[in-house]
Amino acid sequence: PRLRPLALLDAGQAMFRLDRFARRVEREEPWRTDRASESDSETFAAWIERNVYTQQVRRLLAVPCKTLWGAEPEELSLLYTGAYVRGAGGLNRLLDTPRGAQESRFVGGPNLVARRVAEELGDRVRLESPVARIEQAEHTVRVRTPTDDFLARRTIVALPPPLVDKIEFDPPLSAERQALNQRMPMGRLMKCFAVYPEPFWRDDGLSGEAVSDSGPATITFDTSPPSGSPGALLGFVGAAEADALARMSDAERREAVLEGFVRLFGPRAAEPDDWILQDWPAERWSGGGPVAYMPPGVLTDAGRALREPSGLVHWAGTETATRWTGYMDGAVRSGERAAEEVLAALD
Amino acid sequence: PRLRPLALLDAGQAMFRLDRFARRVEREEPWRTDRASESDSETFAAWIERNVYTQQVRRLLAVPCKTLWGAEPEELSLLYTGAYVRGAGGLNRLLDTPRGAQESRFVGGPNLVARRVAEELGDRVRLESPVARIEQAEHTVRVRTPTDDFLARRTIVALPPPLVDKIEFDPPLSAERQALNQRMPMGRLMKCFAVYPEPFWRDDGLSGEAVSDSGPATITFDTSPPSGSPGALLGFVGAAEADALARMSDAERREAVLEGFVRLFGPRAAEPDDWILQDWPAERWSGGGPVAYMPPGVLTDAGRALREPSGLVHWAGTETATRWTGYMDGAVRSGERAAEEVLAALD
Repeated sequence: PRLRPLALLDAGQAMFRLDRFARRVEREEPWRTDRASESDSETFAAWIERNVYTQQVRRLLAVPCKTLWGAEPEELSLLYTGAYVRGAGGLNRLLDTPRGAQESRFVGGPNLVARRVAEELGDRVRLESPVARIEQAEHTVRVRTPTDDFLARRTIVALPPPLVDKIEFDPPLSAERQALNQRMPMGRLMKCFAVYPEPFWRDDGLSGEAVSDSGPATITFDTSPPSGSPGALLGFVGAAEADALARMSDAERREAVLEGFVRLFGPRAAEPDDWILQDWPAERWSGGGPVAYMPPGVLTDAGRALREPSGLVHWAGTETATRWTGYMDGAVRSGERAAEEVLAALD
Repeated sequence: PRLRPLALLDAGQAMFRLDRFARRVEREEPWRTDRASESDSETFAAWIERNVYTQQVRRLLAVPCKTLWGAEPEELSLLYTGAYVRGAGGLNRLLDTPRGAQESRFVGGPNLVARRVAEELGDRVRLESPVARIEQAEHTVRVRTPTDDFLARRTIVALPPPLVDKIEFDPPLSAERQALNQRMPMGRLMKCFAVYPEPFWRDDGLSGEAVSDSGPATITFDTSPPSGSPGALLGFVGAAEADALARMSDAERREAVLEGFVRLFGPRAAEPDDWILQDWPAERWSGGGPVAYMPPGVLTDAGRALREPSGLVHWAGTETATRWTGYMDGAVRSGERAAEEVLAALD
C-alpha cells in the first residue's frame, strides 16, 4: 500500500532521530560513545518500536535494514547500527542515489576495480588458492594453501570475521579474537536481475525504484544501461525474505520474485528475457552478504579486537573500516590502514 | 555488598516473573510461542531493565547469566532465554544445588560418563581424528579426517553450531544452515579451582557458595571431596569477566581470581596449594563454553534449522535438545533423538 501523509511524517521524524543518534556515536571508537553500553544492549528493532508510531512505518524501516545489513532490525545492535550510519555520513547517504551509496552502477560492474588492480599486480595475485593454515613463529608467518607455502614477515587477512574461522591458526588465535569471529555473522542477501526488451516501466512514468514491505524483493532499482536497452530491474532480497527464498527451488524463487515485480510494475514484468539470481549466502567463500554485522553486546565488549593485530597477522576488510563500513570504499580504506600498520611494524 | 531486604524482594519477584514467562514458551517449538517475534526482538538485558527496579538486583541477575550461558544479558534473546529456562523446568532448577543442575560433582569428574561409554565401544571410537571434510553423494556420506576415510549411509554430527564451520562440506551446507552456524556463538566461560589444605571457610560458617557482582569469579562453589580433605573452591568466570581475563597473563589471572576469593572468604584464600584454570574459549576444539547461545532474532528465524537433517547428515549436540539444553542431560537426549531419526530413515 502507498504511504499516507501521517506515515510520511512519522517516517521523516524517525529517520531524523536515527541520524541525530548516529551523529553522537564516536566514529573511531564507538564503545566510547556516551551511554554506549545502554544502546549496545538494545536491538535496532526495540529502537524502532520506541520511536516509530505507525505500524506501516515500522515495517517500512525494516526494509532498508534487510538490504543494508542483510539482517532484521532485531538482529542488530542499536549502537552498531548508529556507528554504521555515522561511518557513511548519515542515513540518507546510505539510501540515496544522488550523492549516496546507491548512486551509480559501474559500467562493466564494480569488480572491474579489483580486476584492474589485479592486472597491475600480475602473477603476484594467486586465485583459487584458499588459505588453509597460518603458522606464526617469532619473526615469520607461514601461509599454507593446499598447493603452496608462503613465508612472510607480516600477513594481512582481509576476510569478514566469520570466514576467518575456516583458516586453521597455529598457534590458535586468542580467545578474544575467536569469540569475535563467532559473534559477527554475515548478513543474508540475494540480488536478482530481470532483463526485458526495454525499460517498460518508464512508459508508465515509473522510475523502477521501489521500496515494498511485501517482497520477496523489498527494494528495486532500474539498472538498465545508459543506452536504455535492454531494460533491467534489480531487486534485493534480504534477511527473512532471503531465508524464505533459500528454502525454495530455483524455479520457485524466480516465480516468487517476479510476482513481486508484477505487483510493483505491472503484468509486463512477469516474463523477462533473462533472469539472474546471485545467492551470496549459498557461496562457500562468501558465506553471506553484504557485510558481517554485530548483534547486541558485541561492539562494546569486543569492538576494539576487530582491528587489533594478532601477532604478525594484521586485519583488513570492510568490517574493520570506520568510514563506509560494509562498502568498497571502506574496504579500500581498511587496506590502506593495514598496510600502514605493517610498514610501521617493519620500520 | 550484601543484599538489602528490598533488593531481596525485587530479586524474588524478578525471578518469579522470568519463570512465569518461561512457562509460557512452547518447549518443542519456541517460535510458536504467543508473541514470539516480540520477545525474540528483545535482549534479556532489556527485560531486566523493564522488570527489575534496583540497580543492585540488575547487576545480580547478570551473574547467573554469565555462568549459565557465558554471555552478558545484552547478548541473549529474551525468547531464547525463556526457552532455555523452560527446558530445565525453571530458573531454580538451573541455579540450585538440591535437585538442580548444580547438585552434584561426579566423583572422578563428569567426563567419566563419556569415558565409560567409550570403553564399551572400544576401537570404534577414534580420538585425535578431527573431521576435515564431509562429502555427500546420493546414498552415501564420506567422512574424511587427515588420516582416514569413512563411508556411511548416514552421519550424525554432534558439534555446537559454530564449530561445524571448521568442517568443509561438499556440497556446501544450505545457506540456511550456514547462516545458523554463524549466528549461534559459543559463550565465554572459564573454570578456576583453588585447592587448600582444608575447606577453611567452613570454620567461619560459610558454605563456599557465593554470588558476587565484583568477580572475576562471579559464582563460587565448595567442591571439596566427600572426605573434606583437601579443601577446594571452584569459581566460574564468564562473559565480560572472562573477556577481561583473556587479556591477562597466567600469573595475572591467578592473582585477580584469588583477590576475589579473599574478598569472599578471607585472607586464607590468597595462597592455595594448587591452582587450575580451565580456559575453554582458548581451546581450539571447544571455541568457548558452556554452550552456543542465540542472540535476538535467531530462534524465530532459524530455530527449526537446528535439528533439521542436511541430506544424510543429522544433527545432535546439547544445543539441539529441548530439555536441559546446554547440559549433559540434553546432550544424551539429543543423541537418542538423532539415533531415532537415522534408524527411521534406514528402515
